[in-house]
Order: sequence, then C-alpha cells, then structure tokens
Amino acid sequence: MRLATVRDGSRDGRLVVVRRDGDAVLDARSVARTLQDALDRWDACAASLRALAATLDAGDVDGEPLDPDQLLSPLPRAYEWIDGSAYLNHVRLVRKARGAEPPPTLETDPLVYQGGSGVLLAPTEDIPLQDPAWGLDLEGEVCCILGDVPRGTRASEAARCVRLLCLANDVTLRSLVPAELAKGFGFFQSKPATAFSPFAVTPDELGPAWRDGRVLLRLTVRWNGKVVGDLDAGPEMHFSFLDLVQHVAKTRAFTAGTILGSGTISNADRARGWSCIAEQRALELIDHGEATTRFLAAGDTVELEMRDGAGRNVFGTIAQRVVPG
Amino acid sequence: MRLATVRDGSRDGRLVVVRRDGDAVLDARSVARTLQDALDRWDACAASLRALAATLDAGDVDGEPLDPDQLLSPLPRAYEWIDGSAYLNHVRLVRKARGAEPPPTLETDPLVYQGGSGVLLAPTEDIPLQDPAWGLDLEGEVCCILGDVPRGTRASEAARCVRLLCLANDVTLRSLVPAELAKGFGFFQSKPATAFSPFAVTPDELGPAWRDGRVLLRLTVRWNGKVVGDLDAGPEMHFSFLDLVQHVAKTRAFTAGTILGSGTISNADRARGWSCIAEQRALELIDHGEATTRFLAAGDTVELEMRDGAGRNVFGTIAQRVVPG
Repeated sequence: MRLATVRDGSRDGRLVVVRRDGDAVLDARSVARTLQDALDRWDACAASLRALAATLDAGDVDGEPLDPDQLLSPLPRAYEWIDGSAYLNHVRLVRKARGAEPPPTLETDPLVYQGGSGVLLAPTEDIPLQDPAWGLDLEGEVCCILGDVPRGTRASEAARCVRLLCLANDVTLRSLVPAELAKGFGFFQSKPATAFSPFAVTPDELGPAWRDGRVLLRLTVRWNGKVVGDLDAGPEMHFSFLDLVQHVAKTRAFTAGTILGSGTISNADRARGWSCIAEQRALELIDHGEATTRFLAAGDTVELEMRDGAGRNVFGTIAQRVVPG
Repeated sequence: MRLATVRDGSRDGRLVVVRRDGDAVLDARSVARTLQDALDRWDACAASLRALAATLDAGDVDGEPLDPDQLLSPLPRAYEWIDGSAYLNHVRLVRKARGAEPPPTLETDPLVYQGGSGVLLAPTEDIPLQDPAWGLDLEGEVCCILGDVPRGTRASEAARCVRLLCLANDVTLRSLVPAELAKGFGFFQSKPATAFSPFAVTPDELGPAWRDGRVLLRLTVRWNGKVVGDLDAGPEMHFSFLDLVQHVAKTRAFTAGTILGSGTISNADRARGWSCIAEQRALELIDHGEATTRFLAAGDTVELEMRDGAGRNVFGTIAQRVVPG
C-alpha cells in the first residue's frame, strides 16, 4: 500500500491511497482524515486503507489523476524527525572535509540528531536559497515512519514499529555546520526544512527489498537533470533502522508518526556517485587539495527517486528547484 | 486566560479553560478540541476561549473541580520542542563542571537544542529512573508556546508570535551528556521526556511581569519538600524569548504549537539556590574539589512553580516523583 497527502488548504492535508501505477489516487478520508490520524489508529485503519487501494488497483473506481505538485509531504508536519547517519562512508568523508575526527565509537554507537519537524517541505516544493555563502546542499536519504515505540524497544522487536517507508532530501546549509557544531548542542540553523517523497509505502510493498531493517534498492540522484548518484541503500547502511530504533528508544518513547532517517546514503565505491555535494567536495579536497564542485545555486534542480526491480518508482520523485529567498 | 489539557484517553486530551482561582476548569471543546487545535486556529478561537473563561470566573457556570492528577501537559505532544540556554550563569557553571569551555560566542549567539517533542510528561507524571548511574537531574525552565513563526522573523516582530507561557522540567541524564555531546550531534539519549506545567497562560495574565520577552517572576524549586531554589527568571535571562525566536527563525519557519524553552533558570547570586542539581554540584566542585550533592533517587519528589505578586500560582505546580523504571 502506498499513501500520500494532497494539498487541500489545511495544515495537514488530506489522505489518499495511490494506485499501483502511481497515476491516480483515491480519497481516504472515509478511513482517516490525515496520515497522522491513520498512524494514530493504525490497527483500526490499515485494513480499510488496503481495501480502498485494492478497489483503485482493480479499476472498480477511477480515483483522481495524481498531480505531483498537489502533494504535500506525507506528513506535512510530524511530531519528531530524527535523523541518523548510518552510512559510515559519509560520516568519514564529511568529517575529514571539515577537519573533524569521526567519533571513536563510530562503528558501535549510532549518530543521530533531532531535526526540526514542524514544517516539512512538499516533494516538489522550492528550496529557498537565502545566502549562497551558506553552502546549500542536498542529502538523499531513506526513512521510516514509526508507529508507537515504547521506551526500551530492542532492535529485535523494532520491525513491528515500522509502519511506512519514504525518501527525504535533508537540506543542509553546509557552511553553517562547523560553527554550529562547535557550540556543542548539535545542528539547528544549519538544517532548514527537510523535503519528503510523494509516497509513504508499507514495507511489504518492497517485497524482498525490505530486509533486516534496510532498503535494498538504489537511490538515483539527479542534479540539473544529470545523474550524479546511483547509490545502493542496502549493504553499507551500517546501522539498520532496527538498530537505530533501539538506540533512540534507550531513554525515550516515541509517538506514532515519528520519522526516522538513515542519514545520507553513501557508497565507498566512487563509481556509484553521491547524494550530497559535501561528499564530492570532500573527495576533491582529498585528491587535489581543493574542492571545485559548487554547492546548489538558484535555478538548480534536484531529483531523488528509487526504482524497484520492475522499474517502478516506489516512492515517487522528490523534484525540487532552488529559488532565491 | 489560562488553558489546560485534561486526560480523556485520547492522545491529545481535551481542552479546558481554568478558573481564576485555579480550582475549577470548564470544557472548551465547543471552541477547540485540543490545545493544538486552538493554536492552529488561534485568531478564530482566542476570543471564544476568553469568553468561556469569563463565564467561569463570573460564577455563571460551575465547571468541574480541577484534579491536578488528571491534567496532561498542555500539549501532550508538540510539533517541536526547542530549548535554549539563555541563563549564562548556568552554561558557565555546567560546562566548567564537565571540563568543557563555554563557546566563545556565548554572549552573542544563543545556544539552543532541538528536543524530543512527541512524548511529553504530564505535570504530575512520575519520572522513571532507569539507571541511577545516569545522573538523573531536573532543570527548571520557563517556556513560551508559539503561533506560526515565519522564517526570518526578527526579535522586534516576535512578541506577536508568543501565544502562551508555561513552565518545564527539562529532565536530563547528566552522566550521559559528555559522551553524547562529544559525538558532535547534540543531546539525544541524555534528554528523556520533558514535563510541563498544568497551565499554559496568555502573556497578558502576567501583567507587567511579562516584559521584553522575559518573565519577571521567581521560580520556586522544592526537592523532597525543601526549597532549594527561589530564582529570579527575569534579568539574568541574557537572551529574551524574542531574541531566541529571531535565532531559531534564521533559516526555518515554525508551526503553531512549537514550544520554546529558556534553559535552566540560574542566578549568579548563590543565595537564590538552583533549579538543577548539576549547578549545585559544579559549585561544590569549584569550592571543595568534590561534588557531594547526589542526583535524583527513587522516591524523591520535585516541585516547580511560579507565584505572582498576589501569591497566585500562575502556571500551577509541576509535582513529580522519581520511580524506579
């Protein structure tokens, strides 16, 4: 089942189910007003939502044509947005580029930060470029949307907490990071609003590509139409989503609708490209002593998507333009 | 006007207005289902909520007796919980105690961290003590609950974004802080769920005690019934709430219902006591080379409240017990 949220003038949009071909949607408000509402009452809603999707797939109803520009983030605002950094190749390269050491516990203790979750960007929403000197960057990620997570949940129990999967563009103001992290309290101004994919998808939609808390698909990243990354999201995710759940739940519980991100998808094989400019610049710095690839500029476009073995665009495409602002 | 949220089995509780004497409440669901709902439609709701409160104050209706144990946090879950550290005396002492330097920009660039907001503790909810070695501590704070904040809001425009004021106990696992901050991504496991005061109060209720984005009242802190802090929340708040709004809004917008905290209230005059144990321990370390005051233990009680010039308990009392768990 794939779910989406359509712009309707309200803060949280209206819930729809998405047809298998991704070209039509069906209003799901007979089951739940919003995606948050469905997540709050998942056990009571999931079967009815699946039934709606089945009628749409069977052609029993036409639904409405899907207009990507009318979609909001599946959760236009969420109660928490927690972002990991589970691809260690990314951590090592980016820290090296800013002259910081990776923490000594890199391989045993997951890195996560608490992100801002009250204003999330729609999949085709413009990214404002406030100041080109701030180093506007994308970060391509895969995420899960959780159900209620009790405090103390172990990785072995965490799969049942994963309700939905989606993609994110975790927009980052790279030049604001070093000074902010030096203050010791983590990211804040350096992480403006994050964008999410059109569709939030139940794990069973991925079939064997959802395994052991990892998404075994490739993320395609296009910058101004050119493929700059074709990254395997699976094996190099050092900490799985199940590991990340155990880590974040050590001292806290989470409400349904909490979004948990993988961190920037990154492969050690350079031929696979990149999903954030900072990594490419880090490699240039290491190889040539100088970073030459620029950050995002006004007019640039960024696209992120994942296709399955059958070529289906599983989560829809995050397709954003950078605009002055 | 003072608002509260009563436990009703739902995730977000039901909204009530509070009688002037704090002894009775009146159901406000005819105006808004929940406090978040009221904040989402504040301009349409505020006058009606004030009218309800006036009927209760006038004795035109009896309302229901207020039972503090039936109150949830005014927002049982919020879209963002952003906590500043605006009392520099606290920053200096606590950093000194853990052998860290305050950032060189301490007086010009506010410290804030993004806290977990999906599960917030009720004002009389037990604080679980998972492991005594983690150094369970309280932090007494004053907070504002914001309306929509556009990106780029300046301090001079920020007063209009402040909808409500309340208190918080920003529970901290002190011994988990150093290792977590050393990883560079800020607090996570070291900040379990935060508790909030019974009432969320419009700024006009404070009269002249709300001035220039500061609350000019004293926070009383009791530990096992003994007053350990009687702290002036006003003049030593180096960055006002208006300054903090400008800081956080530099690159991001915020949705209605975002909670913004002052950080631990702290006075340079030691005679005023303290609102977190870490500060007392820091002073002991500085004076005697050894911290002797213990952290919170099972069975301990913690109370936080603020009274105005007339002796009124403005926000109600946060009154929590520490329990094994």
